Amino acid sequence: MSKTSTTDQEALDYHEFPQPGKISVETTKPVLTQKDLSLAYTPGVAVPCLEIEKNPENAYRYTSKKNLVAVISNGTAVLGLGNIGALASKPVMEGKGVLFKNFSGLDCFDIEVDTESVDRFCSVVMAIAPTFGGINLEDIKAPECFEIERRLVEELNIPVMHDDQHGTAVISAAGIINACKVTHRKIEDLKIVVVGAGAAAISCARLYRKLGAREIYMLDSKGVIHNGRSDLNAYKREFCAGGYMTHSEVFECADVVVGLSKPGTFTIEDIMTMANEPIVFTLANPTPEVFPNDVIEARPDAVVATGRSDFDNQVNNVLGFPFIFRGAMDVRARKINDEMKLAAAHALADLARTEVPKDICELYGKEIKFGKDYLIPKPFDKRLIVEISSAVAQAAIDSGASDMKGFDIKAYRKELAKILK
Amino acid sequence: MSKTSTTDQEALDYHEFPQPGKISVETTKPVLTQKDLSLAYTPGVAVPCLEIEKNPENAYRYTSKKNLVAVISNGTAVLGLGNIGALASKPVMEGKGVLFKNFSGLDCFDIEVDTESVDRFCSVVMAIAPTFGGINLEDIKAPECFEIERRLVEELNIPVMHDDQHGTAVISAAGIINACKVTHRKIEDLKIVVVGAGAAAISCARLYRKLGAREIYMLDSKGVIHNGRSDLNAYKREFCAGGYMTHSEVFECADVVVGLSKPGTFTIEDIMTMANEPIVFTLANPTPEVFPNDVIEARPDAVVATGRSDFDNQVNNVLGFPFIFRGAMDVRARKINDEMKLAAAHALADLARTEVPKDICELYGKEIKFGKDYLIPKPFDKRLIVEISSAVAQAAIDSGASDMKGFDIKAYRKELAKILK
Repeated sequence: MSKTSTTDQEALDYHEFPQPGKISVETTKPVLTQKDLSLAYTPGVAVPCLEIEKNPENAYRYTSKKNLVAVISNGTAVLGLGNIGALASKPVMEGKGVLFKNFSGLDCFDIEVDTESVDRFCSVVMAIAPTFGGINLEDIKAPECFEIERRLVEELNIPVMHDDQHGTAVISAAGIINACKVTHRKIEDLKIVVVGAGAAAISCARLYRKLGAREIYMLDSKGVIHNGRSDLNAYKREFCAGGYMTHSEVFECADVVVGLSKPGTFTIEDIMTMANEPIVFTLANPTPEVFPNDVIEARPDAVVATGRSDFDNQVNNVLGFPFIFRGAMDVRARKINDEMKLAAAHALADLARTEVPKDICELYGKEIKFGKDYLIPKPFDKRLIVEISSAVAQAAIDSGASDMKGFDIKAYRKELAKILK
Repeated sequence: MSKTSTTDQEALDYHEFPQPGKISVETTKPVLTQKDLSLAYTPGVAVPCLEIEKNPENAYRYTSKKNLVAVISNGTAVLGLGNIGALASKPVMEGKGVLFKNFSGLDCFDIEVDTESVDRFCSVVMAIAPTFGGINLEDIKAPECFEIERRLVEELNIPVMHDDQHGTAVISAAGIINACKVTHRKIEDLKIVVVGAGAAAISCARLYRKLGAREIYMLDSKGVIHNGRSDLNAYKREFCAGGYMTHSEVFECADVVVGLSKPGTFTIEDIMTMANEPIVFTLANPTPEVFPNDVIEARPDAVVATGRSDFDNQVNNVLGFPFIFRGAMDVRARKINDEMKLAAAHALADLARTEVPKDICELYGKEIKFGKDYLIPKPFDKRLIVEISSAVAQAAIDSGASDMKGFDIKAYRKELAKILK
């Protein structure tokens, strides 16, 4: 905590006063008279109930389901804090709800599920799913998170996404796309090293492949993942190097390193051996694997990104999940597929290459334009919701995840622009 | 629906426009700057997480749990509509949340659970319980509701109450207390007939006993419940008459009939045989067992109550659950016990015997004062939250359901008065 500009006491006070927590539930319809009551509740409420019983689709017309996303965690892998349990994860999940609301206008119930069992967790989420229009899984440890997400995506017909996996994948992919532009490379030609083999790392490596990457090496706590190892789960095995390789070998002439592990898992010495204009994404949070200033001092030609707000090029999930769910839910996508994630990554990358609005430059007190120091849009950029959500919605329709063939994307973009007005 | 002053289309429009549903989730803390973000989410949010991990009690300081109640249903007994399923019950559950917010200031997540299995339902609710400060079970069919509530009350250390059972019990008990005052009777001396043997009926009869009633007869769809019948579940068996009795025999000289069944299960002819000044609570909703005007025409000496807002003496659950949960949660009661329910019933009855505020008389366009036509307070009476919640809180402390021995009830009543300001 000491490296941030907020103190522990500030964080506690923010959460405690004037009332505990960060959210409230409000009424959107008048409830002032006996007549209002008879519409909101019995007897009037029976009418929409019966309409939904006749046709479940009507739940999207008459209830909050249409705009309601659940953030669901069992607290087994919370931030960098580890398995602190369901209850202790609640401030993070409420915080995620705060981000959903403020960045995309979606309403969010945070649900903390007190179980480490994959079966029970899935059973619980499937049972309560009618409540929601989408489900954001959060801070569930690997490898359980893979199986949980797979099952829920298969069983449910609403968008389900484990953000720790795919959020980081989408945003870092946008960063890599633009780092390639800046350094005149093609993704197909990159030698990529992913340091870490957890939820985010596996999902990042998968998405980079979808983006066209052909040479990816992955390192876990025991070193390079390769065919000769017998200690690998199925997820890690997807990224086996052909034969035995050393740590030094994978870094030698590598174009990209993406750190999703912890401080010290790779070093300035490793970066020294990388290709010209190395792309160094050192995403461990709050303390990166290596600090950006150290990277630049050793390799002034490097392109650097972190997970922190106090350095340039922040790979921040808030650039993804609010807009991905917004777009997916607005076209009633049945899932969030690879096409939609790639569309989000490309839309983010495209946006960073356009002129930056004045209010964003003012917020950061400097001129901001596309280049090594600005590969990824800033979180408070109000164009994000329009660009990312519409791209995701379009991809959902094009890929068949949504049936809304005649959806008017132009009109939708206008609606999106109004949400944060 | 035809008997109410709202049309079906009005009810649908109310639910659909300007946006679907009746609730939204809002942010209670500022999220305007990068600094706000770093307090609401990473890295600042880690501090309250760790405080809660150290001591689970801190969840009440740093999260919305303190003010957050869940309304949970599986949609198996929704209003008078029957088993319409979890999804179709959502408008009712959201409506309950609207009432919680508007009458007591509590925030409410509605959760629709897609299962009819008692085991799975309990497993789901126990798993998600860390999210909430209290749980209002709703519209779950009998007899499953009894076992579900019993298990959850036993397993969880937050207030859990199935409102269909206890809400009606508390409000009708208040009505009976005051009907006794008006007709100069004692509860101990009453001959009470309960028509119906579902969730509400069983719970009402149980609470009337706690109130002092000694002679209660119960009727189910097959007639009077008595020792000679072999078709009774354990819940009905609690209310067996000693030996075989006919429908006519139980009504003869009965002081009270409480109808919790459906139209036609008892008639004006039955009421004709009741004692002087019969107390007739005809609570089936929306269509009562017998209509109040018919009762009064046949028995001008009767005291009548219904479940409807368009007649005097409405037994309306909204007089109970918002204030019972408010009081129970504010003193962190581990359960809602009989003492607390009785305290709520007495507080309601007491309040009805005081002078009615002018604004309530104006709302109803007539002078209102204690008597046969006004046994129970009106829902928009702003004194309810103060009187009922403080009585419930005090009873929780006195009965040991809460450990807050030194709780300042006087100061609490002032706080309560501010909630609806």
